[in-house]
Order: sequence, then structure tokens, then C-alpha cells
Amino acid sequence: CCNLVHGAKISNKQMMACLFSFLVSTDLLPADSGEGVTFAFLEQLMDILLQYILKSFDRSTKVIDFHYPNDLLEGFNWELDEQPNTLEDILMSCRTTLKYAVKTGHPRYFNQLSTGLDMVGLAADWLTSTANTNMFTYEIAPVFVLLEYITLKKMRAMIGWPGGCGDGIFSPGGAISNMYAMLIARYKLFPEVKEKGMAAIPKLIAFTSEHSHFSIKKSAAALGIGMDGVVLIKCDVRGRIIPSDLERRILEVRQKGFVPFYVSATAGTTVYGAFDPLVAIADICKKYNIWMHVDAAWGGGLLMSRKHRWKLNGVERACSVTWNPHKMMGVPLQCSALLVREEGLLQSCNQMNACYLFQTDKQYDLSYDTGDKALQCGRHVDIFKLWLMWRAKGTMGFEAQIDKCLDLAEYLYNKIKDREGFEMVFDGKPQHTNVCFWYVPPSVRYIQDKEERRNLLMKVAPQIKTRMMAFGTTMVSYQPQGDKVNFFRMVISNPAATQEDIDFLIEEIERLGHDL
Amino acid sequence: CCNLVHGAKISNKQMMACLFSFLVSTDLLPADSGEGVTFAFLEQLMDILLQYILKSFDRSTKVIDFHYPNDLLEGFNWELDEQPNTLEDILMSCRTTLKYAVKTGHPRYFNQLSTGLDMVGLAADWLTSTANTNMFTYEIAPVFVLLEYITLKKMRAMIGWPGGCGDGIFSPGGAISNMYAMLIARYKLFPEVKEKGMAAIPKLIAFTSEHSHFSIKKSAAALGIGMDGVVLIKCDVRGRIIPSDLERRILEVRQKGFVPFYVSATAGTTVYGAFDPLVAIADICKKYNIWMHVDAAWGGGLLMSRKHRWKLNGVERACSVTWNPHKMMGVPLQCSALLVREEGLLQSCNQMNACYLFQTDKQYDLSYDTGDKALQCGRHVDIFKLWLMWRAKGTMGFEAQIDKCLDLAEYLYNKIKDREGFEMVFDGKPQHTNVCFWYVPPSVRYIQDKEERRNLLMKVAPQIKTRMMAFGTTMVSYQPQGDKVNFFRMVISNPAATQEDIDFLIEEIERLGHDL
Repeated sequence: CCNLVHGAKISNKQMMACLFSFLVSTDLLPADSGEGVTFAFLEQLMDILLQYILKSFDRSTKVIDFHYPNDLLEGFNWELDEQPNTLEDILMSCRTTLKYAVKTGHPRYFNQLSTGLDMVGLAADWLTSTANTNMFTYEIAPVFVLLEYITLKKMRAMIGWPGGCGDGIFSPGGAISNMYAMLIARYKLFPEVKEKGMAAIPKLIAFTSEHSHFSIKKSAAALGIGMDGVVLIKCDVRGRIIPSDLERRILEVRQKGFVPFYVSATAGTTVYGAFDPLVAIADICKKYNIWMHVDAAWGGGLLMSRKHRWKLNGVERACSVTWNPHKMMGVPLQCSALLVREEGLLQSCNQMNACYLFQTDKQYDLSYDTGDKALQCGRHVDIFKLWLMWRAKGTMGFEAQIDKCLDLAEYLYNKIKDREGFEMVFDGKPQHTNVCFWYVPPSVRYIQDKEERRNLLMKVAPQIKTRMMAFGTTMVSYQPQGDKVNFFRMVISNPAATQEDIDFLIEEIERLGHDL
Repeated sequence: CCNLVHGAKISNKQMMACLFSFLVSTDLLPADSGEGVTFAFLEQLMDILLQYILKSFDRSTKVIDFHYPNDLLEGFNWELDEQPNTLEDILMSCRTTLKYAVKTGHPRYFNQLSTGLDMVGLAADWLTSTANTNMFTYEIAPVFVLLEYITLKKMRAMIGWPGGCGDGIFSPGGAISNMYAMLIARYKLFPEVKEKGMAAIPKLIAFTSEHSHFSIKKSAAALGIGMDGVVLIKCDVRGRIIPSDLERRILEVRQKGFVPFYVSATAGTTVYGAFDPLVAIADICKKYNIWMHVDAAWGGGLLMSRKHRWKLNGVERACSVTWNPHKMMGVPLQCSALLVREEGLLQSCNQMNACYLFQTDKQYDLSYDTGDKALQCGRHVDIFKLWLMWRAKGTMGFEAQIDKCLDLAEYLYNKIKDREGFEMVFDGKPQHTNVCFWYVPPSVRYIQDKEERRNLLMKVAPQIKTRMMAFGTTMVSYQPQGDKVNFFRMVISNPAATQEDIDFLIEEIERLGHDL
């Protein structure tokens, strides 16, 4: 049957397209004799996806075909109606959607920490969609539950916890993983909080660097700790926490009678890519009996690299670690893990023993029903794409890919550090693939008045970015940080990027910005 | 190029398979001239997926090929190694994974609230994986952000909020949607909680029914309110909240000096499928100025049906509604929406203004950068499959699908309510597709001693379920509830199910249970 449709497709593509203008979704499986139409429909869809994949890797195509929200809203009929649309309309909607999508796999897309389009990861994600199940019980996701178990253990072993012991869970993103960590740290110290709430326990204070991710504060707000329960520790010029400042602030807090309960160190900050000094932080956490979390959402991938993993030295002393394979390791979105050193905490902190789901009289080993560890009830299968990519590449494949990205960042740094018109935001070789710099157009380059220069420079990156998106040739992010006005933050996590793409980026910024 | 590979595949399938035993993932795109290998690899994968889809709808195949965790762990090599594996191994891993997967699209899979495999939904999910982007900004997900905007508005209009006004977000599941609702309800009453935490505000009490979902308590525990901040209200025999008991408990709580802040009514409880009387609850919430949330994760789909939507009468008076299209509407996992009547609350409650993501000097209308409303930072694209299915079916298509499932539930109820050996857990026609019943084997049927009967009956459902999974013919859930011992909870949300499948289930339970 499959071959027949394959045949039909080649010789009768036009006929099929014509047919689709009469057919609707109820003609697809599970309709009686729906196989032929279903296979033809999915093949057409595959054609559309394969063309998109080809274009994603083609440097001669745009990264983005940008349109303003209102233009995009009004330019097409996106409305949801009472009546069904034909399969032809559905395929057309797919084409239109991809036409205006950002090609996040494009070798010149550098806009976020998650870039690239891994073919094995993609295949795994298609399979995951097809299996369409839920992680809460072994009963309905036997293989995926086991693969999560195996992969989490492997990740813990790479962190350096003996024998890969401990616990963990895949969560919908780094922010939620960080929230889990704060939640269980609080529970570990004051288990009564689960029953009685924050009113029954002393005021808790968490510590993190001023360069850390906003999810630490967001977690504190959500968990009822409050944003004022997060103390931001000073960083050095490279964005790394200053341990002596951390210790000073802990003592300060204790003197006030509050309870320092949580330090969130960062391994790979979002903007600078800085690695906090984990060993020094671990010493302080040990001294004051504080939960040490490492937010390695971005930097965790470096554990795969023999050349770079020293940057995370001390991570093995953490109580919990956030590690997002969807960032540096290029796994399709979403794939974020929280790893916990102490077994059983996740379960006792979050379990509610819902008997409609976690029946205690099942025939199999109930320790595989991991759903009650989660804040979620249903949980998407995020594991398969990571597991399959790991099988395909081996640890050494991830290592090669990550080392290459770090080499490219160094290449970029070396090219612009002394280049006219470029100014580094901080000195020295980048620790991660983040390269932060200003482009200073000729009109601003020689201005002596600091305030005037600053005010002009602030507007440069946004203007270049606007032009960049209008041309659609490349995408890179910018932002201010502290007292530094808008600068470009270049990040490289796409294995498709090469030195030529870096060269292109530099020249494109000059081309788009020189007349500003 | 595509056609060439298509041609190659038909004539040289064997040769390709042979090739894959030498090729590895680095031979795929973005490798130079990787198109051919990539297309052939993805075509092979598609073949595997299409075969799985065919089997999913084939009643002669098993729903599950069950193996105990240790057997599955030891029966295969799932390990993650240093070295890469060949593409042949990767394709074999895909086949093995699907061989032991539960066919959640099978017409005889009734185990969860999320069942079925919608072909347009699946196509949309494949496209989503291929686009591989993130919902936080319009910049990198222009179309998806707009489709979320359009779809949320449409859903709000169906709830009955004038002109579809209000706010909302797609979240990773109903439990998180419910958590959002509690979070913003707290913030609305005491905005200072964001900054100062729970210690700065009075003790809050939430109310929900004893039949409600465990995520209400889980949210209270996580948010620092505490599980003892959730008062469970009594239900009638059908599992619906008793409004007079709700009012009594609110007054009780007020007298103690606590603040009743939140009522979570349920539209479609997990086990009984009960709909709380929303109008009466809305009156009480209005009287005492309490946030009314409706957890319509399971029942929300009935808003699509002119015949059944009256069961949610009063939902238009809610302040927030959880509605999971991945349940009754058959959208692939995950797809859950939180709808909020008041605009701006989600944003002010959750925003952290991270300037690396939500730059204020972008060129487009920043109201489309919805990421700061979320608890998450990165957020998976869950909207496209719902939007595309809605386009394909039209509202009337969803209606037909949902009405059919409810008809089937009534068919089941009518068949077993007076059938020998079957006993209903509660009397009367089911409100939703949940049909709760005991199968009482002949050996238990005539036992007079209530305690003895109870103890025996308790073991029947688990034993039948164990046999059911061993045979793999069908899957249905069981659980105890309150003082009722283990009973079957049949739910129907799969459009592929027919009356014959219902007949099959009844006979299969009798076949597997009659000798117990």
C-alpha cells in the first residue's frame, strides 16, 4: 500500500493536489479505507517539511522573511470558522506558516541560546509526536520512562555524582527546572511548608549573582518566598560571582534573623556566558549548610567536553543542577533536565498520591511511575530526542560539536578584539560561546563626550537589528546589561555554523551599521 | 533531488538499508552534500511511522505489547556510549521503541483522558518540530505567536466573555494552568506578595471539591500557601460540589480570620466526569468577592457542542478557566490553555522584564512578546496543532467528534446498567464520557457479607487490568474513590472508537474476569 501511494505520488502529484481540494480531514484515518488519503496527505506534508529543511541549511535563503504583526495578521486568513477547510487549505496553511517562520536551523541564526536543527533529533521528535503519550506512568510510556531513567543516570554520572546516583526529572524548560530546585531546597529544610505554607516557617533568603537568569526571582515570587527573598551578589567584570561578597551577604542575612537556604550559582550566564567559581561557592554552602544549586542550563553541555569541562569544576558538589540539552547540545526544543543528588526528595516534596493515576496495586514495580515527582500531571515526552541523538553521536559526537562551537567563538573574538569599530564589553577570551561587543559606527567612533557617545551608542544595536531583520540575512541578539548600553551578544550553538558565517556576521554588521 | 531519492527508495530500498549500516549522523545535513542521505533517512523513518499509524488504527493489533520494566531494560541495549552508532542502529532503535509503545490512538485504548491520534494534529506537530522555535518573542515565532493570540481569543469567546476579551496562555498541561490561576488570583488580591512573599499577607484559603484534581493541592503546596490552605468541599453522589457546603465552609474560614481567596470549580471531574453547578458557585463567589476558577481541563471541550455546552452554564462568570484541548478535543499532547478574564494580570504578576529577551526598543509592537506572562522562559509551541485541527475540522467538526464520544458513553451506560455482573458506581446517565462501574465476577456476585464482598471486589479490577495488559487487547483505568473500592473508569475521547469497541470492552472484561 505504501509503495502504491509512493508510485501514485510520483506520477500523479498533480492529481493528488487536485483531490485534496475536495477532501477534508474526516477522509483521513480513522476513516474507512482512509490509508491512501492519509499516506498521500502526510507525504505532501513531508515534502513541505523537507523543502523547509533544505532551505534552513541554505545560506542563500533568508533567515527570516520579516513582517510586522499587523501585516501578517491582515495579509492572510488565519481565522477559525464553523466550517471545515479542505486538505488543500491545510497544506497551504503549512506552507504559509513556514514561509514566515524564523529558520532557527540556519547557519546564520545566532539569536538565541537554542539554535540548529539536528536531523536525528528531528526524527526522534516526529516519532514522539506519533507515539503521542504521557510520561506519568510506566503503564502508558514504558520505553520512554526507561530511557529517561537511563539518560538521567548518565547525566548525573557526568556531573560527577558517584555511580550516577540521585534523582531527576525532565521539565518544560530551564525556568521550571530552576523552580523545582528552589522548591525542593525549601522542602528539605522545612518539610512542614508543604502542609502549612510559608507562614509557618522563617523568612527564607536565596542568593544568586546579578548576572543570573531571571527565573530565580520568578521562582521566588511564585513560590511565595517573594522577590525580596532573593539577594543579588556582585560579579567581577567577567560576570562571575564574587565569593567574598556572597559570604558577606549570607552573614548579613543571618544577622537579621532570616534563613539563608539556597544559593543558585550559574554555569554559563545568559549574556556573558560566565561560569561562577563553583568550588569556592561549594565551600561557602557547606560552611553555612545552604543548598547549592547550579543553573547550568546553558553551560551544562560543556560537561561533554574534555577540553572545557573544567569550567564546571565543583558542580559535583551541588545538591541540584539544571541542564538544558536543548541549548548547547542542540536537542530540539524542549529538553531540560533537573538533576538532584538526594534520592526521594522530588517524590516526597511533590507527591499527592492521586489514586486514579498511581494505583498502588499495579502488577509492576511502581518506582517507574515517576509522575508524582512532577509539578505537572501530564508530562510531554522530551527524552526520546536526547536519547536518540546521544545514541547517534555518542558522547564524543556531542564533544566534537561543542568544541567546534567554542572554537568558533574564539575565532570571532580574535577577529574583532582589535578590529576598528568593534569594542569588547569585557576583556579576555570568552568562557563560553558568548561574545559580547559593541559596533561603533564612524559617526560615533571619535566622539569624546562620554555621555553623548553613550546616548548615541545605545541606539546603534537596535537600529542594526531592525535592518538585519528587514534584510533577513542573519539574526543576533542585543541588550543592555547594568551600566553597559545596548551591545550585541553573539552566541554559537549551531553545529552548522562555520568560520565563513562568522566572517559574514562581522561584515554584515559593518555594512548595516557604518552609516548610522 | 527529492524525486531522485524517492526513485532510489523504491528501486533500491535494500541498498539504502545496507548503506545506513555504514553511515552515521554526521553524514546527515548540515554535512556537505548531505541532502540525499538526509532525505533517505527521513523517508525510512517516515515508513516506520506510517506503519505504526496503520497499526494504531488496526483492531487486530495489540494496544500494548507489555513487558515488565526489568525485562525491557535487560532485553535490549539502551545504553549511551562514547562512540556513535550507525543510522541503521538509529532506525532499529526507532522500531524497537514503537514496538513496545502503547498505541494511544488505538480504538480500544481507553486508559486516559487523552486518547486518539489525529492526522492533522500529527502533521501539525511534525511541522512544529521542524520549525523548532520558542514562543517567548514575536521576533522568533511570528506566526505561532499570532495563532496563539487568535486561538485564545476564539476560546474566550466560546467561554462567553464578550468579544473574546481577556488574556491567556498555553501552558505545559492542566496542572500548570491551574497553578497559574491560583498564582494570579493571589496576586490580584495581594499584589505585594510578588515582592514580599506569603509572610507579608494573611492566611489564604482555597476551596475545591473532594472530587477535584490533585493539582489544586499541589499548586497550594508549591506556591507556599500550603496544602492546609485548601478546603475540600463535599460532593453529591454524582461527584458535584454541594454549594451550601461551600458557603458554610467559606463562612467558617472567615470566622477564623483567614482570607477565602479562590474557588476552583471543576467542569468534568477526572474520575466521575462531574460538572460542578457553576451558576450557584458564581453567585457565592460574587457574594464573598472570591476569585472563581473553573478547571475545565477535561470538560472544556463540551463548549464546542450545542447539545452539551449547557453543562458548563455559568463558566462565563469565571475569572479564569483551564481548558485542555489535548483531552476531549483530541489534540496531540501537550496542549493546555489558561484563559483569564482580566487583561494584564498575567503580565503584571509574572513579568521580570529581562532585558536580554524583552528589549524595549524593538521595532515592532511589543505586546506580541508574550514571554514575560509565563512562568517559563522558553516555551514550547503547543498552539499550531490546535489551530490547524480547528482549521481542518471547523468548530462543527469538533462538535461532531465530541457528540459522538458522549453518545458512545451513553451507549455503554445503557448496555451495562442492568447487565448481570455489572454494577454502576453512581446512578444515572453520565454527564461526560466517564462511565464508572464494577465488574462483579460470579464468585463474588452472591456474597451477602458486605465486608467480605468489598474485600474481594477490591481485587477484581486490578486483576482484570493485569490480564488485559498481558493480552494487550484493550486498556481501561481503574481506581478507588473515597469509600468505593477499585472500580473501572471508562472514558471515551477517541474519535476512532465505535459501538463495536464498546461491545468488545464489555465482553473482554467478562472474559478476563469471570473466573476470578
